[in-house]
Amino acid sequence: MKAAFYNGNKSITVQENAPVPPKAGEIQIQVAYAGLCGTDLHIYLGHMDKRVTFPQIMGHEMSGVVHAVGEGVTGFTVGDPVTVMPLHPCGECPACNAGHSHICQNLKFLGIETPGAFQSYWTVPAFTVLHLPKGLSLQHGALVEPLAVACHDVRLGEVKQGDYAVVLGGGPIGTLIALVAREAGAKVLVSEINPYRLELLAELGLETINPKEDSIVDRVQQATDGAGADIVFEVTSSAVGAELMTQLPRTRGRIVVVAIFSEPVKVDLHRFFWRELKLCGARVYEREDFQSAIDLAASGKLALDRIITGTYPLAEAEKGFQQMENGGKAMKILLSCS
Amino acid sequence: MKAAFYNGNKSITVQENAPVPPKAGEIQIQVAYAGLCGTDLHIYLGHMDKRVTFPQIMGHEMSGVVHAVGEGVTGFTVGDPVTVMPLHPCGECPACNAGHSHICQNLKFLGIETPGAFQSYWTVPAFTVLHLPKGLSLQHGALVEPLAVACHDVRLGEVKQGDYAVVLGGGPIGTLIALVAREAGAKVLVSEINPYRLELLAELGLETINPKEDSIVDRVQQATDGAGADIVFEVTSSAVGAELMTQLPRTRGRIVVVAIFSEPVKVDLHRFFWRELKLCGARVYEREDFQSAIDLAASGKLALDRIITGTYPLAEAEKGFQQMENGGKAMKILLSCS
Repeated sequence: MKAAFYNGNKSITVQENAPVPPKAGEIQIQVAYAGLCGTDLHIYLGHMDKRVTFPQIMGHEMSGVVHAVGEGVTGFTVGDPVTVMPLHPCGECPACNAGHSHICQNLKFLGIETPGAFQSYWTVPAFTVLHLPKGLSLQHGALVEPLAVACHDVRLGEVKQGDYAVVLGGGPIGTLIALVAREAGAKVLVSEINPYRLELLAELGLETINPKEDSIVDRVQQATDGAGADIVFEVTSSAVGAELMTQLPRTRGRIVVVAIFSEPVKVDLHRFFWRELKLCGARVYEREDFQSAIDLAASGKLALDRIITGTYPLAEAEKGFQQMENGGKAMKILLSCS
Repeated sequence: MKAAFYNGNKSITVQENAPVPPKAGEIQIQVAYAGLCGTDLHIYLGHMDKRVTFPQIMGHEMSGVVHAVGEGVTGFTVGDPVTVMPLHPCGECPACNAGHSHICQNLKFLGIETPGAFQSYWTVPAFTVLHLPKGLSLQHGALVEPLAVACHDVRLGEVKQGDYAVVLGGGPIGTLIALVAREAGAKVLVSEINPYRLELLAELGLETINPKEDSIVDRVQQATDGAGADIVFEVTSSAVGAELMTQLPRTRGRIVVVAIFSEPVKVDLHRFFWRELKLCGARVYEREDFQSAIDLAASGKLALDRIITGTYPLAEAEKGFQQMENGGKAMKILLSCS
């Protein structure tokens, strides 16, 4: 079978690789589609070379069908459509003991610390595998993982009916957060500077603003009669985003930090004091978020077709990364892996 | 009567001033004791000259007895021991409408925007006045306001039985937070660098650490078997405090920002993401916090006598400020105003 290997320094090679037969407690999945994540791009660009041992097969957003089942695995049959929640917690650390195994202090992330889904057959622990409903296309199934991120963020942000929500950054995760927050009953404003993405967001019926052209502070003040936003999602990992996130919320408003900041940035802690703002960090997802994402994807309420802006065969994985790196006209890019 | 006026540039003069008779809806209090607050020190040092119109009578931590009652005021009789919750909200802004009148967007703070308690007779709106129990000394009654701050911080921090709490900064507010958190069932570690305060904190039975001598990260790791603190109170308004506050909590641990940061500081937002930390800002108090503070002060459980490290007559107010400015051997300083 074929597998795409990251070799360091923006090099991806697709080559023959022996499939891994499932051991006891494992499932071998025939991968249908795998999405390129921002984290994969970071790996490709060499930003995570300290964490990734290469050559490594990346990929953790995926859909597929069960190809073989290891000894002792129950509840799965060959041919079942599935996706993977790519978290392998240790089960022993203080985080796991406190019930936060999704942010285990020794977490192995499939596709980062272990081989991932950019291959035709992927063998994973059975506890990471979830059924997909028959009616859900495998293209949409590959969006369940990033959608679960969005479900987690919106849940931790306690978004409720009537909230005014601002999403700073309208990439794939920001866009999915906006759609999930809207489903939760919020009025949503998305801040983004990429014209292609702004157009796509508008097509999805989302209110948008380009903060380089208009004042987002003024817009939010006007829209909320001077109160401020109920909730702000920071998905830019930029100094500007870290500044805006404290300027926009109402008294006791909420901020969810979704973005991955590579280094400390200046934050207006006085504003937290003055308005009694609340902030929480949100990382990956828990099982219930994955289930919410599957249900939402299957509901057909989200225009997931519009999110997928390109599909490359696995053999051309590098082209997908190049398109992501160049930015511009892309939202979510899939690899067709079978 | 006498009143202490701030004249700008570290100048305090005590001079004759006509008492203000209470109008309808007002109460005139004969001030017994008034505490010097960190905010008063900021005013004295000129840091708040943009906000304070001087000459101004400062002071907002106080106790006294009702001296005269304005028309239409019920529930108060001459001679009643009282304290004041020094907040005058507008009642009309989005914050007030949302039920957050203590952080009203047009809040007048008695003793900052309007004349305060550093005088023998203080006339205030009746809605700001609260009864003190007969058994509570008026010295301790003057600590109710800062104690209400601590009750608010501990309540917003959701401190519960068995929590491991760290208080960064063992000044008067940090010390009161530590005592209130201990009453709420937490095991408390206070970080402080002033030797006099460290000794006083130890005498209060609190565990202490001097972060210039020992690693607070190591101490917390050891004390929590590698998990981290349940909650951290940042009361230093320092860059070091802003750094430590994210290093100490466990996964999903809480941070309460109590300190007033004069400008943005670097904050490790990645740590918020990685450990799903939560932060909230906490400012002043709500009515229920004032009532909790009165009850706690009256219970005799807190060694409030030890917190009061000096009492000056009103005429020597400036000496009190000089002692605060010099730091060193002081915790809470009172003025005797009658």
